[in-house]
Amino acid sequence: VGETTCDGKKKVYEIFNSYIPTYIMEVPQKKDPKQRELWLKEVELFKEKMEKEAGVKITPEVLGEKIKLINARRKALERLYEFRKNSPPPISGKDALLVSQIAFYDDPERFISKVNELCDELEERVKNGKGVVEPTAPRILVSGCPMVVPNWKLHHIVETSGAIVVCEETCTGTRYFDTPCVDDTPTDIDGQLQAIADRYLNIKCSCFTPNDDRIDQIIKFARDYKADGVIYYTLQFCLTYNVEYEKVKRALNKEGIPLLKIETDYSREDTGQLKTRVEGFLERLS
Amino acid sequence: VGETTCDGKKKVYEIFNSYIPTYIMEVPQKKDPKQRELWLKEVELFKEKMEKEAGVKITPEVLGEKIKLINARRKALERLYEFRKNSPPPISGKDALLVSQIAFYDDPERFISKVNELCDELEERVKNGKGVVEPTAPRILVSGCPMVVPNWKLHHIVETSGAIVVCEETCTGTRYFDTPCVDDTPTDIDGQLQAIADRYLNIKCSCFTPNDDRIDQIIKFARDYKADGVIYYTLQFCLTYNVEYEKVKRALNKEGIPLLKIETDYSREDTGQLKTRVEGFLERLS
Repeated sequence: VGETTCDGKKKVYEIFNSYIPTYIMEVPQKKDPKQRELWLKEVELFKEKMEKEAGVKITPEVLGEKIKLINARRKALERLYEFRKNSPPPISGKDALLVSQIAFYDDPERFISKVNELCDELEERVKNGKGVVEPTAPRILVSGCPMVVPNWKLHHIVETSGAIVVCEETCTGTRYFDTPCVDDTPTDIDGQLQAIADRYLNIKCSCFTPNDDRIDQIIKFARDYKADGVIYYTLQFCLTYNVEYEKVKRALNKEGIPLLKIETDYSREDTGQLKTRVEGFLERLS
Repeated sequence: VGETTCDGKKKVYEIFNSYIPTYIMEVPQKKDPKQRELWLKEVELFKEKMEKEAGVKITPEVLGEKIKLINARRKALERLYEFRKNSPPPISGKDALLVSQIAFYDDPERFISKVNELCDELEERVKNGKGVVEPTAPRILVSGCPMVVPNWKLHHIVETSGAIVVCEETCTGTRYFDTPCVDDTPTDIDGQLQAIADRYLNIKCSCFTPNDDRIDQIIKFARDYKADGVIYYTLQFCLTYNVEYEKVKRALNKEGIPLLKIETDYSREDTGQLKTRVEGFLERLS
């Protein structure tokens, strides 16, 4: 299953489809009522497709349960991120990133229970004033493209340079849980599908235009997580985040929030170069 | 006025908008009935916007005239391209490209009359067996991204290397006139807007998914224009044409049509390098 969020993905799914059947959902680019209507239709068609492929009927009872389950997963991650606002944070950015990456493929019930266990431990650490860095370590908010396993490159560089990543404003970070949960009150299929469609259309990904809410979020997170600086992280193929940087830069300059832009890929070749740039940025913050 | 055809344009319009108000129309990515409905709505909203901005009322009489006028422009270009199927062609690719580029900003009535005058002259040349190259010169079909003034780089390289460009399968070439004209039979506004929406949604640009009709077109044009080879032309930022190349390559290999891919930009820096590659390709054709 693919979607039309960005050009790179949209066109690569066509090639995937020549190897394995790939079903495409159209994600609209604007968020007006007519666009919401199209997106809702795509969600409904996807439900029908799933029923046909799996030979099952999706009932409001089962769908309602699953909505609650996935909302609980979002809440577990939200609880985890909350601890990172402490100074010093009781967990490193790299560990927190790994947890949020695992959310995408682990069994949800196991994941929720394990993350809550971890959070209980973090609660103890915070009570006892235990952190993973000195309270003076520069705090970094990472903002931009998602990072999937095994992509820990930027976090590793930042956290071996004396700083700590306190939050990821990405689709593998806050955008996964901070966009309000799916409304779990509807008890009929139509209402449930509407709630799902609304929740996903509300994500502040740069594939949408305009996407100014994201800029407000970055500034809010920089404050909430007491970030000393923001590293804007884009992958080379990702035009939308690359161009959206211009608006983010203007807004953050206005707020006086230090900003570094990094454009990279999944290879290790530029690690040395990136480390030099990150170290230079951290010097500016101290 | 901008649109959401590709990520690069979609996001740059946001920056334009911070300098000058930029109105965005959402072009859907798929071409299913629900997508057509969204696009029709966008065309209707755009009409309303134009009426408001210009303080006029768009009547079916005036819109009907304009539809006929722009269709006549398409037909003039179609007539011009038809002459390029001759061997040898009576007009160079660079001259034909310039004519189709001018279509985008010249006064339509003047343009139509001047192009038809030119075509009368070309008709004479063909009758007298006059061509711009020897009949043995390799014939090239260019396929891919649009070329706007002053972009004649590839054509200049090809035509100073002993070959001739006989057709452009691009949005500044065949896609401008070969997609059937707007249906000019409706006499009411709703029918006219539907005809306009349908015509534009029918364009075979790589921003759509899937876009397999384009591949059929390339093969058809290669035959109709008796091309000895195809040069696939993409601009660096244009992910959709870049990725769609994979499918085109498979299809053209299967048909035994020689193919060269060129990725470039508007600068002159790679001219020498491109010339070497084009010359190597032309040697393969002879």
